[in-house]
Amino acid sequence: MAFDDPTYREAVVDLLGAIAYGEISAFERLAEDAKLAPTLQDKVALATMASAEFHKVAPLHARIAELGADPFAAMAPFRLPIDQFHLHTAPADWLEGLIKAFVGDGLANDFFREIAAYLDPDTRDLVVSSTDDGGHSAFVVERVRRAISVDPPLAGRLALWARRLMGEALTQAQRVAAERDALSALLAGGVDRPGLDLAAIGRMFTRLTDRHAERMSELGLDS
Amino acid sequence: MAFDDPTYREAVVDLLGAIAYGEISAFERLAEDAKLAPTLQDKVALATMASAEFHKVAPLHARIAELGADPFAAMAPFRLPIDQFHLHTAPADWLEGLIKAFVGDGLANDFFREIAAYLDPDTRDLVVSSTDDGGHSAFVVERVRRAISVDPPLAGRLALWARRLMGEALTQAQRVAAERDALSALLAGGVDRPGLDLAAIGRMFTRLTDRHAERMSELGLDS
Repeated sequence: MAFDDPTYREAVVDLLGAIAYGEISAFERLAEDAKLAPTLQDKVALATMASAEFHKVAPLHARIAELGADPFAAMAPFRLPIDQFHLHTAPADWLEGLIKAFVGDGLANDFFREIAAYLDPDTRDLVVSSTDDGGHSAFVVERVRRAISVDPPLAGRLALWARRLMGEALTQAQRVAAERDALSALLAGGVDRPGLDLAAIGRMFTRLTDRHAERMSELGLDS
Repeated sequence: MAFDDPTYREAVVDLLGAIAYGEISAFERLAEDAKLAPTLQDKVALATMASAEFHKVAPLHARIAELGADPFAAMAPFRLPIDQFHLHTAPADWLEGLIKAFVGDGLANDFFREIAAYLDPDTRDLVVSSTDDGGHSAFVVERVRRAISVDPPLAGRLALWARRLMGEALTQAQRVAAERDALSALLAGGVDRPGLDLAAIGRMFTRLTDRHAERMSELGLDS
């Protein structure tokens, strides 16, 4: 059993805590950004995304408790890096908020799905289900493309903004990797679990940046 | 069929539009008030309430569309009175926010359940299900009682606050009743539907204020 390894258990609690706090702060940020919505339809669309993110918190908390840990203690180490990320990437307007929702959550979800490959089946299913955006973000693509078609120079500013989001996300991810040994060890593997060597980590980053570039071109932006 | 009466259909569209916009703005307000939460646990509890309110919007919109109306057009007449209500009752602190969530939503839900008695069975079920708070507000009672036990003079200020909420709610409800003929006619009944005479309306108000007083005493406050 994977959970007989206390380091593995600790890593899973960390991972679920990070995802859960990420969902809570995504909820907060989307609810906040919904205020910038130009129409009630847009506001409802963003509030729908906010609510969908929050809905994922309860099963993550339940699983952390099943593993014998306290959900709020499990989230605690991730509050600072996630809050810092949001503090450093406060959208200046509605479109920046939309792009942050799409690009930032997309990146986080891709990363969690990569990690999911190294997890036991139950945890994997839970992690994968919490990366499902329920198709809500399709409206982001439509809104951003429409705005750019009306005002093409906008594309330059928004592309820079997305690059800043990516940079800030990597900064905070690195900080987490440096501080959470069990979580980092998860990627390195264990006695009876395969892990990633440096070359494999490199390939993972390539996949993540490729998918980021795909999302950017969906939006009609250079990456 | 109740819906053969165009005034009835119009009244139902109005009612569902009012409830839907009420849920959207409850979501917004609870998400906003969650920022005032003293702990992450409290924040999660309020965000859970926010998310639960928002979850009720989609079925209401679906039903409005089934009745051949546009959900956003149906909500439009209620934006001003509901926004005004929130504008005039912005909580000064975390406890005022909690009381507003509990007392305000409680009152609105009681009112909608009273109206539900005059509806066709399908609409009635939908309205009743959107008045269910899922037990989330139990935590409000606990938090408010605990705060008052630590600082008893608080009870006076909070009781005044709740009275202001009640007054503002009645003001806006009156405004809606004056402007939405079909909705008001719903309460008065139709050819083959029973309605309320003045005495019955009086009894309804007595029931609403009785239940408000019960909620206040649950909180440990005078009404």
